[in-house]
Order: sequence, then structure tokens, then C-alpha cells
Amino acid sequence: MGDKNEYKLLPRIDYPADLRQLDVDQLPQVCEELRNDIIEELSINPGHLASSLGVVELTVALHYVFDTPYDRIVWDVGHQAYGHKILTGRRDRFCTNRCLNGIKPFPHPFESEYDTFCCGHASNSISAALGMAVAARLHGEDRKVVAVIGDGSMSGGLAFEGINNTAGTDNDMLIILNDNNMSIDHSVGGMRKYLLQLTTNSTYNSIRYSISQKLRNWGFLTEKRRKGIIRFNNSVKSVLTRQQNIFEGMDIRYFGPTDGNDVIELVRILRIIKDMKGPKLLHLHTKKGKGYAPAEENATIWHAPGKFDYETGERIKSVADAPQPPKFQDVFGMTLLELAQKNEKIVGVTPAMPTGCSMNIMMKAMPDRVFDVGIAEGHAVTFSGGMAKDGLMPFCNIYSSFMQRAYDNIIHDVATMKLDMVLCLDRAGIVGEDGPTHHGAFDLAFLRPIPNLTIASPLNEPELRRLMYTAQLPGHGPFVIRYPRGCGSVVDWRCDFEEIPVGKGVKLTDGDDIAILSLGPIGMEVQKAMMMAQMTASNEHLAMPSVAHYDMRFLKPIDTAILHEVGRKFRRVITVEDGVISGGLGSAVLEFFADNHYQPEVVRLGIPDKFVEHGKPSELYKIIGLDAESIVKHILR
Amino acid sequence: MGDKNEYKLLPRIDYPADLRQLDVDQLPQVCEELRNDIIEELSINPGHLASSLGVVELTVALHYVFDTPYDRIVWDVGHQAYGHKILTGRRDRFCTNRCLNGIKPFPHPFESEYDTFCCGHASNSISAALGMAVAARLHGEDRKVVAVIGDGSMSGGLAFEGINNTAGTDNDMLIILNDNNMSIDHSVGGMRKYLLQLTTNSTYNSIRYSISQKLRNWGFLTEKRRKGIIRFNNSVKSVLTRQQNIFEGMDIRYFGPTDGNDVIELVRILRIIKDMKGPKLLHLHTKKGKGYAPAEENATIWHAPGKFDYETGERIKSVADAPQPPKFQDVFGMTLLELAQKNEKIVGVTPAMPTGCSMNIMMKAMPDRVFDVGIAEGHAVTFSGGMAKDGLMPFCNIYSSFMQRAYDNIIHDVATMKLDMVLCLDRAGIVGEDGPTHHGAFDLAFLRPIPNLTIASPLNEPELRRLMYTAQLPGHGPFVIRYPRGCGSVVDWRCDFEEIPVGKGVKLTDGDDIAILSLGPIGMEVQKAMMMAQMTASNEHLAMPSVAHYDMRFLKPIDTAILHEVGRKFRRVITVEDGVISGGLGSAVLEFFADNHYQPEVVRLGIPDKFVEHGKPSELYKIIGLDAESIVKHILR
Repeated sequence: MGDKNEYKLLPRIDYPADLRQLDVDQLPQVCEELRNDIIEELSINPGHLASSLGVVELTVALHYVFDTPYDRIVWDVGHQAYGHKILTGRRDRFCTNRCLNGIKPFPHPFESEYDTFCCGHASNSISAALGMAVAARLHGEDRKVVAVIGDGSMSGGLAFEGINNTAGTDNDMLIILNDNNMSIDHSVGGMRKYLLQLTTNSTYNSIRYSISQKLRNWGFLTEKRRKGIIRFNNSVKSVLTRQQNIFEGMDIRYFGPTDGNDVIELVRILRIIKDMKGPKLLHLHTKKGKGYAPAEENATIWHAPGKFDYETGERIKSVADAPQPPKFQDVFGMTLLELAQKNEKIVGVTPAMPTGCSMNIMMKAMPDRVFDVGIAEGHAVTFSGGMAKDGLMPFCNIYSSFMQRAYDNIIHDVATMKLDMVLCLDRAGIVGEDGPTHHGAFDLAFLRPIPNLTIASPLNEPELRRLMYTAQLPGHGPFVIRYPRGCGSVVDWRCDFEEIPVGKGVKLTDGDDIAILSLGPIGMEVQKAMMMAQMTASNEHLAMPSVAHYDMRFLKPIDTAILHEVGRKFRRVITVEDGVISGGLGSAVLEFFADNHYQPEVVRLGIPDKFVEHGKPSELYKIIGLDAESIVKHILR
Repeated sequence: MGDKNEYKLLPRIDYPADLRQLDVDQLPQVCEELRNDIIEELSINPGHLASSLGVVELTVALHYVFDTPYDRIVWDVGHQAYGHKILTGRRDRFCTNRCLNGIKPFPHPFESEYDTFCCGHASNSISAALGMAVAARLHGEDRKVVAVIGDGSMSGGLAFEGINNTAGTDNDMLIILNDNNMSIDHSVGGMRKYLLQLTTNSTYNSIRYSISQKLRNWGFLTEKRRKGIIRFNNSVKSVLTRQQNIFEGMDIRYFGPTDGNDVIELVRILRIIKDMKGPKLLHLHTKKGKGYAPAEENATIWHAPGKFDYETGERIKSVADAPQPPKFQDVFGMTLLELAQKNEKIVGVTPAMPTGCSMNIMMKAMPDRVFDVGIAEGHAVTFSGGMAKDGLMPFCNIYSSFMQRAYDNIIHDVATMKLDMVLCLDRAGIVGEDGPTHHGAFDLAFLRPIPNLTIASPLNEPELRRLMYTAQLPGHGPFVIRYPRGCGSVVDWRCDFEEIPVGKGVKLTDGDDIAILSLGPIGMEVQKAMMMAQMTASNEHLAMPSVAHYDMRFLKPIDTAILHEVGRKFRRVITVEDGVISGGLGSAVLEFFADNHYQPEVVRLGIPDKFVEHGKPSELYKIIGLDAESIVKHILR
């Protein structure tokens, strides 16, 4: 690691008000220092690098031109907001970013008044910012509201809904489209400069706005008439430009595209359009990883690179002494390909996470049979439903917390028709440093009430393989498999494919006094707890109860044979699940016991009814009482 | 009612194959007969009239030109599909439409092979159809797939996600945009005819398609390059037309707009574009209510007019002898306005349901403070979150089954920030004739696991007013109020505003043997059951147990004082809720009892774990055991 860079300006900027004391021509220097600070900090304390580097100039320009926090900047997906954090009172604490009790992984209003909205999930910024713009208008405040949305987030339906409504609402919002990879179509070539020049010239815009305001004030601009006027405006614009832009088509004035890594130019443009009335969109091109050569070269790897050497750009990987169990993600990816080679009906669907969930393995081998649909979870599920309806066997893999966006799609477009398909929920349970918006806490509770679903979670890697094999056999209807981020427990994972009877759990350990029922890999923590309890009891001369452990494997249909056995035999039952405590496995067990008149004492362990903060998974499990040591206490109580 | 019309052609059409035996010039006659048949049937057996009338010609043309059911027609929102049902084997049974055991309210594959997908909720057709188009390609089938989507449905983010992905996927899908009210911007005037003539001329399209296919076959059309090629194509097109269309901008060939009520012209155009390769969109203008003067004049009222006189167009309303309790919807609408008059922070948000939920009352009085965001439930909630974040007090009213579309928005954009706002879930519980896609069955179960929410349901109209008053007081965080469709039980509903202590239920009846805990208006059914049980016991000389009845009012936070009292005092407990049996009130009660070591016998009554079909609410409640008579049996067991 090199020496700490010498920063001249950054140490003087505690808050944006300090930044605004500088001259414009000092801003490039601020940007350089801010960029280096981010790189330096992240080389030690890992995080999302490339996207934050790309928006350094935009971050500086926004806080320079706008009067934050009075003016509102709404970030879309907060991992681009590291520069924003450093400039808004958190420079000294930035070294604690994503750490337990450190600053939050994504901006959040509970942490800073500069953080205007929760921004862990993509595509929500325009809707939220529109709400703020409307609030400012109704409160009579001359507040500016800016939404900063990446081109990736623009594929989400929520962003479209936001834009669609921006047009129909009286507001002065500025949407900044931070475009680093072009997923939005736009005009090219000579038209680009032409449009930029035309539209940043405020003559046309101000004429148009004053006309529409007059119409509104005179009571002419009713909802019914508005559409006609939009068309009229666009006709005028089309005549002027011989071109219709997609945003202009929605009555949002369009500026750009322009270089989003040129801070002087950004300040110039933002100053021009800042006070313009009506909704507007500024289209920027930025370079992901900008200013750090390794990250510029491969923005995907450097999206969240882990620790690295600041000088050399070498990523630092810890090397294990012995063979390690694989990640569930790798087992998923390799198994999916194997299954797809045997079953030609299998197709893969991922919403923008082919690398994260390892579907890229099948994608590389069978590009025609894997569909990356972009950030569009609802579409991912309904599209899979359409394929399933016509005889394919989709494996639709979505992170648990993002599956919350496809809830109605699961109910309406899959479950009502009992379609044969597989929903894989990756990142189920506590995910760690990404915090409350990313924990897969709710899936068991929100999926269990849906009729026709099968819901399973594997204890370990071979079980994941067997569940995937089972799920793709015809006739099961929609089959959910949830599993966590990271490594499992079995090094030698590549077992033969074997069907698992649906709705059947397995007794891992026999016992007489306490029955522990667990679902998923957290069962390994139970096994560990049972061994620790034995040792503790022996060391402390306590009575060790005889503990049975059942891996339920299925939340739905739940194994009623096991539950009858447990209900008849045991006075004490402990349920353990890596999901929220209300509505999941524990609740299902209670319901069964109530319906069948069993009355054991049941202790339910799971994620408590609050948003669990960020930190290492091991730290968080300890805090919420889902680690082996906590389970031991319940055993030895 | 007039005599049954004399139909010459319709009786000969049992299936589309019969239709395809006719000459094109007979189709207008078929349309007229089909239209009259729909009007006649609906005058007796109410349903959705206006939208089905608007698409009569399109329905006939599609089944005439396409080889259904081999080719797939995917309807978006099935209440436009009455003509489709009549032409596809259900003419004789159409009189049972929406009735118990009759044909389903919306097309569903379980009913007919001509019904390709579930279509109760808007905006899913493009995604589903794209899945079918991909399945056809992978199966090597030369199957045509058509999605028919209304302009209203186009405001939903899912439709945008579908269109956005249509561009990136190899498919030959046809999207038909059934535009009866213009919520989509498009070019007008002379350009309309120009575009239509240009694009239905297949020269340009076939050249363009063959180029892109060659590029793909040669391996040049990678994902990365695709975007460049789209831009290239659009540039070519822009040069040709001096115009860029929003769909063309997404690489979907655009045809139209054309008259969707001219069946001959429709057949001509569909025949031209049917075999064209690549995705394409045909933009039709249709008239809602077409062909029935009263419905043409006021399509909103005639969307679902109830019974009416076929000849005069007079809507038949039953007149009550005595004053009736108001609808919960009216109480909501009038109370919202009253509250908004007192609290200037209150704003209203509805996704396209201002009339259905009665927010139109406030909208009329305070147009600046009510936002109809179109079919866009996710945006409705996130937009409300943005307003709440900046100090407004939104009442966001969404039907329970549509709130499934805003699940992540509630979690991520509201609950994580504990924003002060109100979510009103109208149409909670069993809704009746609209069937499984519209029952508000899941909300209690999917909302209860979310931290920071308050969840309440009023017993009757005055309680709804008090809950609404309470919810808008500051500091409560997100406050959910759920209530059913239709009338409550209290005629004199306009009580004073009074704060209800959050998390406090009320004991309606004292007793010693059985405690019944209910949530919401179904509590009135419990009261009825208690009276009936008394009578039955008296008549049949049975022992009548002493029954206590608690109206819990809040699911979350649940009234622990009541639960302690019940847990201590009672051996038998019955929970009653108008929601799915897994995860709601009954589960919450079981969890509390388990956590606090109470062991009464608990019987949980609610909606069973299956999709409840359509029928009158009274019929359905009886079937699922949630009517008073069923409750009596549990009391007298």
C-alpha cells in the first residue's frame, strides 16, 4: 500500500457548504482528491468501487450547484454515493462504511439529512423525487429536487412509472440519467450535439413552459386537454428538430447527452437548467471506474472488487489451507448447466445478476437458453411464466430481497396457473454488509400463504443439487428453492442427481427431550450448537438433554409425518429459520400443532421483527440470536 | 326487455375454425351479432360491457386471421374478452359468466385452451406473450403470438419491462395496442397516415430484418453490439421518416394508428404483418362501448353497468325499503375529504381507481391534492413515500390484490424509513364475482412480517372514520387500513373524529367459555353467529357456551393485553379473519400464546390455502366456512 495521498482541498470540505466556498476551477482538484480518497479507502475496506468513481464529478457538481440539504438529491441505488457520503459530513467515518455500527452501505435518511431516501433497490428515485417535488410545491417551497438514476435502473418498471407520471404532474424536477453503458436508446451522431445545443438554449423551453403555465392558470390545462397539448408541444418540437426524443415524447425536456466526467461543464449546464420550470432530464455519459485504470478496464470485476493494492491494482485474495466448500452460487450455476444439458426444456432467467448468481456459466455454454432481462424482476417472473405455460422449464433466479418486487407476478402469473417452473431465491436470509434492504428476510413469510407453491431450502450443496434436479421434473407446479449467499458445508458436493420426495424432511439426529426443526443451511448451525451444548454440559456438569434434529427441507408442503411424530413425542420444540420470525417455519409448526391438538412448548428462532442493520453475517447472527451459541442457550435452558 | 335478436351467423360459430369458414365480407355481420349478443347477455347477467364492445372487431379479426388455439392470443385484463369467450366454445355457457360454478370472470387456461394466460391484473400480457414466443422459437414451432394490451395497461411498469425486453429478444411477437383513450403519446395529423403507409409497406421492414438476422447468424449480433445496431436501424428509419417513434426507438416495428373498429381493414392489416419477422406493434384506436349508444356516451359508467334494459339503455337499480348502511368506499371518500379540509398535509394517491375507491370526492373538491397515477401501484406507494418524506400525509388507496404489486415499495420505500403515511387497502377479503385474482386474500399475511407497520381493520363504518382520523395524526409511521368492498353495518356512520389507541382492540361481548377474536367487518358475522348459536342451542336443547367476542382492530401491533386476558382465562379460542389462513391473525395469536406459554385450544377460521373461485360473496363465504352458520358450528361443537 502506498503512503496516504496528500490532499489539499478535501480536508477543508466537511459539508457541501464548504465546497461551495471554492472557485469553479478548483473543482477538478476536488474531484481528483475525492476519487483518490475513495480508491484508497476501498482498497482497505471493501465496497462498491467502480460506480462511485464514475459519478465523482457529478457528485461534486450537484453539491456545488444545488443548495443541499435544502435541495434534494435522490440517488438511485446508493452504492454510487460514496463521494456523496464523504462530502456530507462522513469523511472521517467513511472508513467504517458497511462495517457493523459503521456508516450504512446505502444512503438512508436515518443517517444524514443529506440522504433523502432509502436507496438500496434500483429504480425508485424518480417516483420518490417526484413525491418530494410535489411536496415542495404544495408547501410553497422553492426547493429543487434532483433524481440521479443509472441506465441500468432505467430498465425497471418502477422507473418507467415514475417518468410516465412525471409528465402528468406539475413539478420542476430534474432527472439525471447517469449513463455508463447505454441501455437507453437515443439519437446519435450529429444529432447529439444539435439536441444539446438546441435544448440548453432556454428560448424554446421557456416559451413552451410559459404557454403551458398560462393555459393552466386560465383553467384550460385539464387532464383531458393536457394530452392534446403534449402532442401539440411535441409537434412543435418535431418540426423544429425533425426528431422526436423518447423523453420529449413524454413531455420531459431532454438535455444531452453530455460528458458526465467533466465537472466544469457539468456545473455550467446544471446552472443553466437548475431554475427552469417543468420536468427535465439531463443525459450524461460517465465512465464506470473512471480515474482508476484497473477499474476502467474491467468495470464488472471492479464493481465490488474486495480488498486490493492501491498502487498495483492487484486484488488481494485470501488463500485457504485446505479445500473449501463451494459457494451455493457456484453449485447453482454448475448444476443448472448440467441439468440443462440433460433437459432441453430448461431455460435460465436472471434480472441483471448473471454473474452474481452464476447463471453466467450456462449463459456462456448456451447463450440462446439464458435470458438476462435487466433490472426487471416482475418481468423476469411473468416472462418465465409465459415460457412455462408453453412447455419450457424456466429456472428464474432472483435475490430474495429483490423477489419482493415480483410478488404479484408469482401469485398471478405463476401460482394461479400452477405452472411447472423453478424460482430460485439467492441471497436468502442475512446477507451481511449490504444491510437491511438486502437481507432476504421476508421470503418464507410472504411465499408461504400462496397456494400451489412448493417451497424448499437445502441444508447443504448436495441437497441444493438434488432439489434442483427434483424441481425440474414435470408436474410439481411452481417450485421455490431458497439458499443463502456464500459457502455451504460440503466440499465434495458433486453428488448424483436423485429425486427428493416433495414435502419430506429428514431426521438428522434422534433424541427424546427436545426436537429442533430447522430449514435450510442454518441447520448446520444447529448441528454445531448440539455439539457445543454437549461440551458445555460436560464442562459445566449440566444435564444434557437428548436432542433430536429434523431438517424440514420443505416449508410447503410441510412434512406432516415429522410434525405428528414431534407433536406426539416431544414436550419441547425449537424451530430455527433464517427468515423473519412472523409467518415462516415457526408459525407453520404452531399452526400444525394447533390444528392437530399437540401442545409442546415451542420456541421459535428467526430474524426479529425489525430491520437488521449491516455488518458481517457472523456478527449479525450473534446479535439476532441465530448463531450456535444462542441456540446452545435454548438447548441448555 | 326486447325479444331475443335473430342471429344468422353467430349460432354457426362454435369455435374459431367455424369463423374461418366465412368470407371476409361476412365478418361485419358476425361483429354485429356478437356485439348484440354481448349487450343482451350483460343486460341480464351483469359484467364488464364497454371494453368488450370496443374490441368486438379486433376479436373477430384475430380469430379469423390467426390459427387459434395453436397461435396464442394473450389478452391483457380479461374483461375485454367476452367476445373471445363467445367465439371459443363458450357461447351457450356465457349466460353463467361470473356466476358461481359458471365460466370464469377472466380468461384462464384451466377453462379453455384458447385462454393462454391468467389475465386478471393489468400489464402482464407482453411479458407472458414474449415467454410464449421464445418457447415457440426454442421448440422450433412456427407459432404466432399476439399480446393485446390496452392503453391503460401500458402505464404499468410491467408492460414497459415487457416492451423493453421484447427489443432484446429474438422473437416475432405482435403487440396490439388497443387504444381507446390515448394515454400513450404518438404522432398526429398527417404523420399518422404517412407512418401507416410507410410501415405496412413491408419493403423497409424486410430489408432491415434480413440484415439483422444475417448479423445474428454470423455471430455479429452479440448483446453488446445489438444496441449499436438498434441505433443504426433507428438512424436509418429516422432518415427515412424524419421521425422517431417511441416503439421504433425500442426496436419494435410500429404500425398504425388505425381504426380498430373496422373489421375488414383489420383483417387486411393483420394478414400483411402476421408473417413478418421480428417484434412489431399495431396501434389501434377503438371506441369503448362501441355500438351501444348509452355506453358510447359514457364509457366510465358503462364499464360495468350492472343490469340494464336492453332497449332503453336504462340501468336497473334495486331500491331499498329502509335506509341502508353506506359502502365502506363512500365512507372512505367522504371522510378523506373531511380530514383533508382539516389537515392540509393530507394528499390522496390512487392508481387508476378514483371512482372505485371514491377518492373522486376529494379529487373534485381538491384537484391539486389528489393524484391518479394510472395503473402503477409500485409508483403510487413510492411516490407517496417521497411526499411523506417531505412532510405531507398521503392516503394511498390501492385494492388489496393490486397492493401485491407494491410489496417491495412498502418495505423498501416506506417501512425502512418509518414514514408517516396511510395505506388504505380497499377490496380486502373475498370480493365475489371477480374471482381468485381479485380477492384480497393475502394482505394480512404478507404485511404482518414487515417491521414498523401498523395494520388495522375497522369493524364498521364509524370505526373506519376513527381509524382514518388516527392514522393521519403524526408519529404513527406507516399505517395500513384494510376494509372490504361494499356496505358495512351502520346506517348512521358520520361519527365524531376520535383517536383510537394504536394496538388496542375492544371487547364487544363478555363471556367465559370461548373467546372469539376477529379482525375487521367479519366481526359482524361473528356477532350474528353468536345470536344464531343462542337460538339454535335453545331450539335444540343444547348447552350454549358462554362466548366472549373481541374485535382486535389491530393485527399489528396486536393487543397483548387482550391476548394475555384470553390466554389466562379461556380454554377455547376461535380466530376469525377475512384473509388467508396462513400467516395472518390466527398465526399471530398462536405465536403470542406460544411465546407466553398459554395453551388454549385455538381454532383458526380464514380463507383456505387455495385460490377461491368466483361467485357471490355470500356463496363463497359459505363454501369456505366463513359465514355465520359455519361459525355457529364451531361455537356449538
